[in-house]
Amino acid sequence: MSKIKELGEFGLIHRLSSRLKFHAPDSVLGIGDDCAVYPVKSGTYEVISTDALVEDIHFKLSTTTPEALGRKALSVSLSDIAAMGGTPKRVLVTLGIPKKISVSFLDKLYSGFNEICNRYKVELAGGDTVFSPKCFFINVSVIGEAKRVFTRRGAKPGDLIFVTGTLGDSSLGMKLLSKKGNHKFLTGRHLDPTPRVHEAGILARSRINITSMIDISDGLVQDLYHICKASKVGARIYEDWLPQSPEFSRFCNGNAIAPLPHLLNGGEDYELLFTLPADGVKNLNRQFLKAKVLVTQIGEITLRSKKVSLEMRDGATKTLPESEGFNHF
Amino acid sequence: MSKIKELGEFGLIHRLSSRLKFHAPDSVLGIGDDCAVYPVKSGTYEVISTDALVEDIHFKLSTTTPEALGRKALSVSLSDIAAMGGTPKRVLVTLGIPKKISVSFLDKLYSGFNEICNRYKVELAGGDTVFSPKCFFINVSVIGEAKRVFTRRGAKPGDLIFVTGTLGDSSLGMKLLSKKGNHKFLTGRHLDPTPRVHEAGILARSRINITSMIDISDGLVQDLYHICKASKVGARIYEDWLPQSPEFSRFCNGNAIAPLPHLLNGGEDYELLFTLPADGVKNLNRQFLKAKVLVTQIGEITLRSKKVSLEMRDGATKTLPESEGFNHF
Repeated sequence: MSKIKELGEFGLIHRLSSRLKFHAPDSVLGIGDDCAVYPVKSGTYEVISTDALVEDIHFKLSTTTPEALGRKALSVSLSDIAAMGGTPKRVLVTLGIPKKISVSFLDKLYSGFNEICNRYKVELAGGDTVFSPKCFFINVSVIGEAKRVFTRRGAKPGDLIFVTGTLGDSSLGMKLLSKKGNHKFLTGRHLDPTPRVHEAGILARSRINITSMIDISDGLVQDLYHICKASKVGARIYEDWLPQSPEFSRFCNGNAIAPLPHLLNGGEDYELLFTLPADGVKNLNRQFLKAKVLVTQIGEITLRSKKVSLEMRDGATKTLPESEGFNHF
Repeated sequence: MSKIKELGEFGLIHRLSSRLKFHAPDSVLGIGDDCAVYPVKSGTYEVISTDALVEDIHFKLSTTTPEALGRKALSVSLSDIAAMGGTPKRVLVTLGIPKKISVSFLDKLYSGFNEICNRYKVELAGGDTVFSPKCFFINVSVIGEAKRVFTRRGAKPGDLIFVTGTLGDSSLGMKLLSKKGNHKFLTGRHLDPTPRVHEAGILARSRINITSMIDISDGLVQDLYHICKASKVGARIYEDWLPQSPEFSRFCNGNAIAPLPHLLNGGEDYELLFTLPADGVKNLNRQFLKAKVLVTQIGEITLRSKKVSLEMRDGATKTLPESEGFNHF
């Protein structure tokens, strides 16, 4: 009998979901993308997703605030909706609460929920509140709407690969949580990520032919592999093109930290990773310039099926291993 | 600072939800009923709900099977959709998995999910699978559709109160889980409840003017109080009219167990509790007779605001206290 650790999260999900025999006739997408997708009326799809945060696995109460935790719990779920090109509309929140959690803590957690709900016009429409003596957990299910749906499946050889914002900040920030010093920007990127809801909206409203999209939660390489596998293509990315924040570069330089592992495999960036044909680039850049959001080409889709390779600064190219992302098991 | 235990689950939910400022303009119902409700197209509403089961609070691995646990986790969520008169369509399942849980256990759990999905034509459309070292939990979010929505709000004085099936079996069954002897029917009613999805469908398709409905999860009295408070009415129920299964009656008689506490406050019956004007009773009985499902009048709605009273066998009447249901905190 195989163990969960050997299967990994994705192997486990594949194994378990293959047992399920009933598929709704109207489903556009079921298990295996950022969201499940189905039509609700002519020209409108609903996109749904769920995400859990467990204490000491996904957060530590000693290194975050209840407000930031509330914002993050919602933001990571909203990011899944953004990854499909959708607009989040409603969330359902389950809290598993141990005795040590106070009412005042929950008040602040809800202030965090409230902030995100207001910012993105999302209704906290319901939930469940249960006693959970041994662990604190938060589960958020989110329902969004989309006119166009961006899946992982449509990337074509020759398409260009883009990413919003900068990479690696969250991963480096996580390492700095328990360290002394003022690393507010980097730790903030980990504790309080911004879901790219507005940016997904720009792409969805544009006429740009986005051929695939995902949000980077497991790390750039892992998530690019998700696109390559679903689209049956390969990808080449360039070390020199990976976008870094000034704070990230400065900290890596000043502390002899190799940036590349953070950029490639850090995870929890919650940036959008997407592909489009070259003829859409001018429009893309114009839209993002107008919105004052950084968007960077980092590589291109190749024929070489299901392989992601990196062209390094010295011109050498290597195939990147498919990490298991955060394999907690 | 008040403690969670003092507030109780419903007090806590009320306190926290009052912090939320954003309400979607199209929401028909938000927090405070079995489901949140919003229109998706002309004449169709979507109804959504979420429920968590936590090991040692909601189930014990020593007294259930993984298959039954899988069925129950889905059934209790489907029951919330039924309570609104809706048809469940899709579920999202989050598993928080500690090391002790094996792949073989999860295979069996999914067999249970699969059974319920097939029986009710519900798609398991996605989920999240996370490592949770200290506790095993299952969270199920469910999305359903309804043409008519039955809330807790519309009960009127003079309406008659009905319940599907029988009461108290689950509560008595739970007490018998660790006892020797063959109590398969009663323990089965606790471990493997039937969500009244088909019965809700009968009511929704009928022309019967259902004025309020809820599923009994917290116990008959507690859930009747939910209807009375939301509808600003009172209720009188009759001891003699509360439906008991032959197995329940026999076990109570044979073991000198008072049936009333189980019938009134047992909880987890997952039967439908609903109200209608007297002119709908003939139609109701005809429909349920045809479907071969038991439905029983247990009392009537009264003017006496927000009070539930019981007329006992000896003719005396007493006001029933509003229990806190399962206050785990």
